[in-house]
Amino acid sequence: MADTFAFQLLHSDGAARAGLIHTPRGTVRTPAFMPVGTQGALKAVHWHEVREAGADIVLGNTYHLMLRPGPERIAALGGLHRFINWPHPILTDSGGFQVMSLAELRKVDENGVVFRSHLDGAIFALTPERAIEIQALLGSDIAMQLDECLRLPAAPAEIARAAQLSLRWAERCKRAFEGAPPGRALFGIVQGGDDRRLRVESARALVDIGFHGYAIGGLAVGESQDVMLAMVEEVMPQLPADRPRYLMGVGTPEDLLAAVARGVDMFDCVLPTRNGRHGLAFTRQGPINLKNARHAEDPRPLDADSRCPAARDFSRAYLHHLVKANEPLAGMLLSLVNLFYYQDLMQGARNAIAAGNYADFQSMTREGWARGDIAPYVAPM
Amino acid sequence: MADTFAFQLLHSDGAARAGLIHTPRGTVRTPAFMPVGTQGALKAVHWHEVREAGADIVLGNTYHLMLRPGPERIAALGGLHRFINWPHPILTDSGGFQVMSLAELRKVDENGVVFRSHLDGAIFALTPERAIEIQALLGSDIAMQLDECLRLPAAPAEIARAAQLSLRWAERCKRAFEGAPPGRALFGIVQGGDDRRLRVESARALVDIGFHGYAIGGLAVGESQDVMLAMVEEVMPQLPADRPRYLMGVGTPEDLLAAVARGVDMFDCVLPTRNGRHGLAFTRQGPINLKNARHAEDPRPLDADSRCPAARDFSRAYLHHLVKANEPLAGMLLSLVNLFYYQDLMQGARNAIAAGNYADFQSMTREGWARGDIAPYVAPM
Repeated sequence: MADTFAFQLLHSDGAARAGLIHTPRGTVRTPAFMPVGTQGALKAVHWHEVREAGADIVLGNTYHLMLRPGPERIAALGGLHRFINWPHPILTDSGGFQVMSLAELRKVDENGVVFRSHLDGAIFALTPERAIEIQALLGSDIAMQLDECLRLPAAPAEIARAAQLSLRWAERCKRAFEGAPPGRALFGIVQGGDDRRLRVESARALVDIGFHGYAIGGLAVGESQDVMLAMVEEVMPQLPADRPRYLMGVGTPEDLLAAVARGVDMFDCVLPTRNGRHGLAFTRQGPINLKNARHAEDPRPLDADSRCPAARDFSRAYLHHLVKANEPLAGMLLSLVNLFYYQDLMQGARNAIAAGNYADFQSMTREGWARGDIAPYVAPM
Repeated sequence: MADTFAFQLLHSDGAARAGLIHTPRGTVRTPAFMPVGTQGALKAVHWHEVREAGADIVLGNTYHLMLRPGPERIAALGGLHRFINWPHPILTDSGGFQVMSLAELRKVDENGVVFRSHLDGAIFALTPERAIEIQALLGSDIAMQLDECLRLPAAPAEIARAAQLSLRWAERCKRAFEGAPPGRALFGIVQGGDDRRLRVESARALVDIGFHGYAIGGLAVGESQDVMLAMVEEVMPQLPADRPRYLMGVGTPEDLLAAVARGVDMFDCVLPTRNGRHGLAFTRQGPINLKNARHAEDPRPLDADSRCPAARDFSRAYLHHLVKANEPLAGMLLSLVNLFYYQDLMQGARNAIAAGNYADFQSMTREGWARGDIAPYVAPM
């Protein structure tokens, strides 16, 4: 494999793009959805199943892994890929988002962030330099700069302060990343909350610094989908066409469809596994809640035409029973259904962009969701 | 497939036996270990993995399935095999054991047992006739008679009363089973607690009634292994050689080894999955507790020579991390390790009995356990 990181734009269809991200550990087809292996594991899914679902790349959470088992230990064990037995590309976040959402007693200053672990209260420090060091210890193929994430809504002055701090941290991350092994990539993160002007300024400043790819961070944190898409629309024209664009922490199937239309290449989200564990299946007919009593006697599978064995080989009645009985297998099967669905949605998008009919793909996909689930089962007399 | 149920004794080695149970849904190699799919699912294991581990037959719990989703519903959905998507043989228990261990407000009389569901307090009745009817609705390949199980120790008069009641229920079950589809089997259950004389009487009386196979019930309920094996030794000579013998709810790998030596053909137990979910792996080196800090930095797999991918493909450090982090994948991987180990133990027993060296197999297996786990990992300087 080549020792270089490169984005190859294959097709454009309006603003939508299909391409390939080449890394030394393998190629990622874009638009790409990255399943999230928070603590070094997807919840209730085997790694070989993640691959079978069609994932080219997964995401690991620096915050969780720095607390337990610790990046130095993972490095001593040969890096994150070997640790989790996933030889394909891995993107790691910088820890900034989880520090905001999970840690206690955060103190952010120019140097970085000091926080208490949500596990045992131990005190940790995360600086731009340490975030890059941790990701190097993990051996991630794509590292993210440290940024400061805010929950929305937030005061304009606060949003501006955090965006400017994130830019200064971006420069420090870039410097800290010098000397990384060939083929490793570092992405900058556009911040600026729901402020269009700040978003544009942030994007331009990051492009001036220069990164292998650009992420939009600080969204999907409480704002409406309209605001999120407006920010994406503002930022996209500022980013160079020859670098991948990653919308962090997003989202629902509808979010993905709309963001791909606006030029986003990469996504990550815990929804497929989290919703799967709560009895919700994403399907071509829209989301289906297996807790619902309508499924209790339904011998039909979730989707007989699915590529996913879990969607084909079990009746809705069985899935309903497993959910009601709180069986671990419920979450295992429905997470798998959802991971397959997200990957198939991305494959559909890639095919449509290549064929120049992404608009049709969008409307057909939305029509399928709007049509809704098949009619309730009526047992024969 | 032939529409008949038959036990074919292939090899004897001392009291140990190797054979085949032929059923219309497939053949079971004995000695056989049956994984337990309590509520229509093994905990944290996919059905295809149960098969890959080497199981020819699994056990379903009548008590759980009668409460939820109900046998009539499962029948309307095409039976338990189709419901759980396991086309191979299934043995169902009669519900008696779980009524004793889980239900509230039990009232046992000549007619049967009335109890409250542990789920919602609803009142259910289980009679010998209803136990057979439920198992017919489930479509199980091997049904069990209803019996009354006692916890040991129990008063002698109480043990005798329960054993005699179980015999009268055995007769009623036999009558209720008349007209079952060809190839379905009904097993009687020897009761009698820890009383040798009662055990012998119970076995003889059951053989007089005549069943397709014979189980020893009411053991592994608090007594020592010595008592359990003594009861097995008492009962075995009373049972016809051309019928399979099933020791219910047993046990540890050591229990299986010792009971096979005494002529037992079938076992079931939740230990492989329950212990897997609690961080304990059964291996050729004995049980290994992955919670133990000695594994935290150990890059070696549980057993590089195992047939089980989970035992080969992940480091002890990773498994330790998953257990400590409470990741569902921990239970998924360790349950799989244990199911493979139990099946491999039975395959080893079958091979040894066929080769006439079961005594050697026993001592070599015990030596492996006694030798214990490999020395703790020492990181290179």
